[in-house]
Amino acid sequence: MAKSLPVSPLAPAAFPNLPVVKGVRFATAEAGVRYTGRPDVMLAVLDPGTTVAGVFTRSKTRAAPVLDCEAKLGPGRLGGAAPEGAAFLVNSGNANAFTGRAGEESVAALCRAASAAAGVPESRVFTSSTGVIGERLPHERIETVMESLVGTLDETGIEAAARAIMTTDTFPKGASRIVEIGGETVTIAGIAKGSGMIAPDMATMLAYVFTDARVAADDLQPLVSGINRETFNAITVDSDTSTSDTLIVAATGTSGVQVAGNAGFAAAMGEVMLDLAKQVVRDGEGATKFVTVRVAGAASRSDARLAAMAIANSPLVKTAIAGEDPNWGRIVMAVGKSGAEADRDRLSIWFGKTLVAERGWVSPDYREGDGVTHMKRDEIIITVDLGLGDGAFTAYTCDLTHGYISINADYRS
Amino acid sequence: MAKSLPVSPLAPAAFPNLPVVKGVRFATAEAGVRYTGRPDVMLAVLDPGTTVAGVFTRSKTRAAPVLDCEAKLGPGRLGGAAPEGAAFLVNSGNANAFTGRAGEESVAALCRAASAAAGVPESRVFTSSTGVIGERLPHERIETVMESLVGTLDETGIEAAARAIMTTDTFPKGASRIVEIGGETVTIAGIAKGSGMIAPDMATMLAYVFTDARVAADDLQPLVSGINRETFNAITVDSDTSTSDTLIVAATGTSGVQVAGNAGFAAAMGEVMLDLAKQVVRDGEGATKFVTVRVAGAASRSDARLAAMAIANSPLVKTAIAGEDPNWGRIVMAVGKSGAEADRDRLSIWFGKTLVAERGWVSPDYREGDGVTHMKRDEIIITVDLGLGDGAFTAYTCDLTHGYISINADYRS
Repeated sequence: MAKSLPVSPLAPAAFPNLPVVKGVRFATAEAGVRYTGRPDVMLAVLDPGTTVAGVFTRSKTRAAPVLDCEAKLGPGRLGGAAPEGAAFLVNSGNANAFTGRAGEESVAALCRAASAAAGVPESRVFTSSTGVIGERLPHERIETVMESLVGTLDETGIEAAARAIMTTDTFPKGASRIVEIGGETVTIAGIAKGSGMIAPDMATMLAYVFTDARVAADDLQPLVSGINRETFNAITVDSDTSTSDTLIVAATGTSGVQVAGNAGFAAAMGEVMLDLAKQVVRDGEGATKFVTVRVAGAASRSDARLAAMAIANSPLVKTAIAGEDPNWGRIVMAVGKSGAEADRDRLSIWFGKTLVAERGWVSPDYREGDGVTHMKRDEIIITVDLGLGDGAFTAYTCDLTHGYISINADYRS
Repeated sequence: MAKSLPVSPLAPAAFPNLPVVKGVRFATAEAGVRYTGRPDVMLAVLDPGTTVAGVFTRSKTRAAPVLDCEAKLGPGRLGGAAPEGAAFLVNSGNANAFTGRAGEESVAALCRAASAAAGVPESRVFTSSTGVIGERLPHERIETVMESLVGTLDETGIEAAARAIMTTDTFPKGASRIVEIGGETVTIAGIAKGSGMIAPDMATMLAYVFTDARVAADDLQPLVSGINRETFNAITVDSDTSTSDTLIVAATGTSGVQVAGNAGFAAAMGEVMLDLAKQVVRDGEGATKFVTVRVAGAASRSDARLAAMAIANSPLVKTAIAGEDPNWGRIVMAVGKSGAEADRDRLSIWFGKTLVAERGWVSPDYREGDGVTHMKRDEIIITVDLGLGDGAFTAYTCDLTHGYISINADYRS
């Protein structure tokens, strides 16, 4: 666990320079939950007037903090008005998942402590935990650093926050956009962690996005849920789903700019979330290739998603990409098993801009050398046209390599 | 491709001594479809009076031979009476999949040739092809050896047939049972190939089972379909599905023993099919552990299957097993994502006979050393009780190792 992995070859050159989002302050601390010698807790405190929306794992065995967040964000709980502030408290090293009653007690204790220290109601404290599962969260260690966290809150602390929530991540993940709306400026900045969809052991996906836009919770939630379907729900590293996956978006309203229904704001939010989601894939365990899988021409959008995710999750497709093998037959196989409506004789496949297969067979103009050239790139684009309708979906994944096996099999948790 | 892999550590000590099934004769030949220096075609010719049943891949991109077999075995095509003989013609090295019109022409040419040589109607010739996809099947090479095949048919040729249909298999697969019914003897013998569910490239699952029982096609098909759900459809190597998977069962009737509705016959047929299915898992690409996943206490049988297959297909569960890591958290994760109804606080998990987790947390009596001891075995048994109902299902799989990556990524097809 403490053993650090080499930084992913697909990592960005550096952590981006994130702009300050007024109304959000961050602090981090070394609580020693599991790791030593590194920050493992982050607290974000949000000004009164902040609205919050969230999307969580659909796992039937989701962790105690997820259940608590869902209860607090449920219908009717946090509607439009948001007179109070809010706080997000996140620890790495222990997921507080599958910890029975003790898990709920830990969440309650942390919400009480953060509420008291930060001066926000318990109903407005949202906690997440990521790390090993099945072990009681030593929440008292986090309580011990609570006063110190509150005492060091700083609106420029977002990069430190991104680092504190890392587990098997090999780089911290951040993204931002500044958008002009009616001559005024709205800022969006977010952080994420994750290096699988997954891995209850260590690689849960967590993301926190902040904006100074003014938007009612009733408007924010559907916007975030919609964008989530095309971003965090369009990525996969290994088809496994964490018991703790969490996305929380907070709008402080400090810019004074109303954004409900604004297309420019929605697009910028979409870009931030997609950027973060792609960074999670770029840190996929063992990844050496970033793969975009575009499916078009499906009978429906849901069919397009089925086919795209089947390709993106197929171990045989992913190992072929790892081997730089333009093995289009495995793509045909994945489409075939996906459950999506498909007609072998209408299917077309491209690697990058090279048409590989059409009308049920390899294209007469295809030269394997062209496929190999594309496969040697770090960024692979697979396009499939099912030739049936207008349904389209794009998924993002990485290759399946010896590195994945090493991370998940070769050393014990 | 020609590079041969080391024999699976989970392989049986030797090919079993299979009894003769009267009414079936086998021949093999070197047609040089793709491989050289080894038999790559097998022909089985069945006496008049034989009934035939089949189960095929549900892939939407299934190969031309599969579509032809399905058409011939469709409702009303081969009902009760079977005055004519039948022939099964199988080649390895080329799957004749995603080969457009040319694929159908190859199937037609082979059916014509086998029909003429073996003296059975074309409607009673069933072909299968396994190997690379997307390349035209050089069917003329198979036609060239047809006379020689028919000239060397032999009722003891079943082991040679099992070898001729191998692709990336590291050992030939056979199984048999002899069952007494009303003082008379009925024999069942079968062969299979496959080392993934999958791999359009090379690892399609094919199985042929023969019996001298007398059973009408209308009775044989539902029996075979039912057993298939618990055997070949209960195994997974990597969650991928071939475009060519085929199971064909033939009853020659030469024993004169009527078996319709006989429980002893059904049980013996179930044992032969399960034995063959497990051998496919034992030859799973890179496999070092044979894993039985038993799910009980599900709200329904289909929920039990969802949970069992989610565990058996999870890359994180399979890599943990490869690493001999008793990582029960990953099993909780897999149950959670499976879609099956589940309640974290009713879930119990055993490794072998060791209770690991119960009521939403690790069992107080569990010692990690006991889990590790079980994980060091070649044969792992994972039992999950969902605590909700009576639904049960057992799935069979193998671990996910560096060997799988090497086979599928490290060398080009």
